[in-house]
Amino acid sequence: MFNYTATYTDKYQLTMSQVYFLKGQKDIKAVFDYFFRKLPFGGGYAIFAGLEDLLNALADLHFDKQDIDFLRREGFNPDFIDYLEKFRFNGNIYSSTEGDIVFPIRPVLQIEANIIEAQIIETLLLNILNFQTLIATKASRMRQAAEDRVLIDFGLRRAQGPGGYYASRAAFLGGFNGTSNVLAGRDYGIPVSGTMAHSFVESYNDELSAFIDFAEVQPDDCVLVVDTYDTLKSGLPNAIIVAKKMEAKGQRLNAIRLDSGDLAYLAKECRRKLDNAGLSYVKIAVSNQLDEYIIKSLMDQHAPIDVFGVGTSLVTGNPDGALDGVYKLASANDIPRIKLSENISKITLPHRKQVFRILDNDDRFIGADAVTVSDEKDVDVMHHPMYPLKSLFVGNNAKEPLLQKVIGNGIRLSTPRSPLEIVNYSLQRLEKLPDEYKRFDNPHIYKIGISTKLQTERDRLINEFKK
Amino acid sequence: MFNYTATYTDKYQLTMSQVYFLKGQKDIKAVFDYFFRKLPFGGGYAIFAGLEDLLNALADLHFDKQDIDFLRREGFNPDFIDYLEKFRFNGNIYSSTEGDIVFPIRPVLQIEANIIEAQIIETLLLNILNFQTLIATKASRMRQAAEDRVLIDFGLRRAQGPGGYYASRAAFLGGFNGTSNVLAGRDYGIPVSGTMAHSFVESYNDELSAFIDFAEVQPDDCVLVVDTYDTLKSGLPNAIIVAKKMEAKGQRLNAIRLDSGDLAYLAKECRRKLDNAGLSYVKIAVSNQLDEYIIKSLMDQHAPIDVFGVGTSLVTGNPDGALDGVYKLASANDIPRIKLSENISKITLPHRKQVFRILDNDDRFIGADAVTVSDEKDVDVMHHPMYPLKSLFVGNNAKEPLLQKVIGNGIRLSTPRSPLEIVNYSLQRLEKLPDEYKRFDNPHIYKIGISTKLQTERDRLINEFKK
Repeated sequence: MFNYTATYTDKYQLTMSQVYFLKGQKDIKAVFDYFFRKLPFGGGYAIFAGLEDLLNALADLHFDKQDIDFLRREGFNPDFIDYLEKFRFNGNIYSSTEGDIVFPIRPVLQIEANIIEAQIIETLLLNILNFQTLIATKASRMRQAAEDRVLIDFGLRRAQGPGGYYASRAAFLGGFNGTSNVLAGRDYGIPVSGTMAHSFVESYNDELSAFIDFAEVQPDDCVLVVDTYDTLKSGLPNAIIVAKKMEAKGQRLNAIRLDSGDLAYLAKECRRKLDNAGLSYVKIAVSNQLDEYIIKSLMDQHAPIDVFGVGTSLVTGNPDGALDGVYKLASANDIPRIKLSENISKITLPHRKQVFRILDNDDRFIGADAVTVSDEKDVDVMHHPMYPLKSLFVGNNAKEPLLQKVIGNGIRLSTPRSPLEIVNYSLQRLEKLPDEYKRFDNPHIYKIGISTKLQTERDRLINEFKK
Repeated sequence: MFNYTATYTDKYQLTMSQVYFLKGQKDIKAVFDYFFRKLPFGGGYAIFAGLEDLLNALADLHFDKQDIDFLRREGFNPDFIDYLEKFRFNGNIYSSTEGDIVFPIRPVLQIEANIIEAQIIETLLLNILNFQTLIATKASRMRQAAEDRVLIDFGLRRAQGPGGYYASRAAFLGGFNGTSNVLAGRDYGIPVSGTMAHSFVESYNDELSAFIDFAEVQPDDCVLVVDTYDTLKSGLPNAIIVAKKMEAKGQRLNAIRLDSGDLAYLAKECRRKLDNAGLSYVKIAVSNQLDEYIIKSLMDQHAPIDVFGVGTSLVTGNPDGALDGVYKLASANDIPRIKLSENISKITLPHRKQVFRILDNDDRFIGADAVTVSDEKDVDVMHHPMYPLKSLFVGNNAKEPLLQKVIGNGIRLSTPRSPLEIVNYSLQRLEKLPDEYKRFDNPHIYKIGISTKLQTERDRLINEFKK
């Protein structure tokens, strides 16, 4: 894992904090919203991921000796450095549940802390949550496309450095079945799998000998890569020979893997030849530059593929590469704050808030979250955040409050959850979301509204600034 | 930094290694090439980065107790696990110099080791080199666009997890002047900078008070963000007031920062108003979704910008997101090996090799690297790797051998170099490359050729397989 220290931050957090400290403002109570503005990949939802890693990082976050020495060399004020030596995060965090489906504009998480603590953790928080949410969402799209087939993350080699370690976790949260990444398996309990590269076949003088040796050592999980020289002329016939040898010993070849060529065509040809050889139990795994669209295309073509190995596009969240999550001040010293902008969609929402998910009579999601001031216990009408003429009456619907206090005065309150618990929760939540939000082309737009009280408060602040 | 252990690898490396081990093949001597097939971003060159981090990671790479316990639980063979407990990388590495410009097809680096060691380090090597080379290349493109202006990395918050830490290093190698990332500054000696976020302004009841407090505490490096409420009506006039107050104390406002709106227009307006106020020394910094194309456009419009702060597109290497670097077997047991493919461009080059860069009479690069078998001391004719009819006579040119032994029997041979030394070297190398390779649109294609001996050897192996 990465050894986070409190200098895993942007320098301006420390520069601003020094001003607050030296100007006697260090105890300003601040509330910041974490939210994003745009769903990644043109999709209809996102999967919130990274919370457990964030909470673990915060629990121990401090400036170590190297940090302090460095800050001295950088010329920070000695009294401020003394203060930083004792820095711990002692604030509150109100968060959505990790694995829940989340949407733009509404706070995914809120931080309430003295302003210095809130600023210092900003970069770490954005770095962890933006990335894991991006990857869990990408993985979930692949899960939609792959239906009930097995999905394995093969991405570490093309990942953005150690981003790959966290990508493996996020991919599992998004519905992947396993990873090739051994360290992620060790630390997160994700099932690990892996068999054979082309180099293994090439290191032998002939393909068949390579397959035979492999099957002898790994009879319980034998997957043979069949495209080193020629899939249909060499790899597959050799795999069939080995499968038959294994049968003679009461063993079963698990699968063959295709890593090049036209995967739909080759999978069909291999399936037919395996079946004709009485090897209908041998599975077909494929890899090579897959993404959710190629998986969907292969499924649409009824390619008889059992396992998809996905690498680069998964772990780098291509083509987006980043979730645009931001961290905006909502209140300082109990005074609600906003940021104006020429771009009306960038005006922030003041106050500590709550978010309610609107349910229908069957406990399914109607496709709307309402944002309120935190002291509102319910919401009757939700207003479009930008167009005052648009509103939705939700007074008769059941609702779920989505933000829960997970850290209070720096102490973890929520029970830690394993990746498996999180993904199970996530899949339940997705079940409640109508399919129209899950399709790739022009998905339904999930509505986000604000309560009358929040709307009034925001508009009052805007008008104050205009004066 | 990330705590790499030897399980930072794909499981198939261990599965294959177990077969080699149990089949008495553990001492097979293997040579692997690290190379990529496609220049990122449609550009004309790449900057090789990540080598120092890789060499440092390899120096200490081992399976720790948690790794060993995990591998036992995963059911690996006990004798093999005993072997892994003693695992160290004891092989040789021949590498290009970090910071050099590199091109597709030719080996960037070669590994010579027993096959188990070579396989286990594969994923780590690809993970480090692919990512840092991608980002250094992206940064170098921004450096080309920004000419002599200051470039600062602001990317950590949108980076792919701890990828951001390594991205800051790679960006510096690609020609950035500094980073906001404090930890990267601490560990890599990269200059760190950072000043003020919008939240700082918002936390005050008015913008001017925020600016005044900031300037009082940070008079030596005061950069005021002027777009929290309204750049031209509020932010800039307040910044001018503060600049004048600072002048009265013999201080100078360093810069203003624009983070939204039309940056070209606002920079020109702000420049004019600052100049009219006698503040021509106050610099203008801009940020907000910049990439090399936007920087180039701002430069083409003569926007009076002194500092560009670049985030997401830099640290995520958008839109590519990954370098397609691969690791291919070139020799096993001193027998040269190739991987065939239906795609002729994917056929690999056998043998341990050397790469020669061809120079002109002025010691500049002519735009060609020739790949030879490692025992060739010179090269007369270089052949196109795929089209035998295309060749280039280079017998009269001076040449530089590019691959140097940096690790011998596991011992580091090359002298460690600081990021500053590497970037200085890199800029010298780029100087020798004609401008036509550096432009964004249809850059000149750098030629990669193979020697007659390597061509003959490869074709012999292909024909052997065809039989």
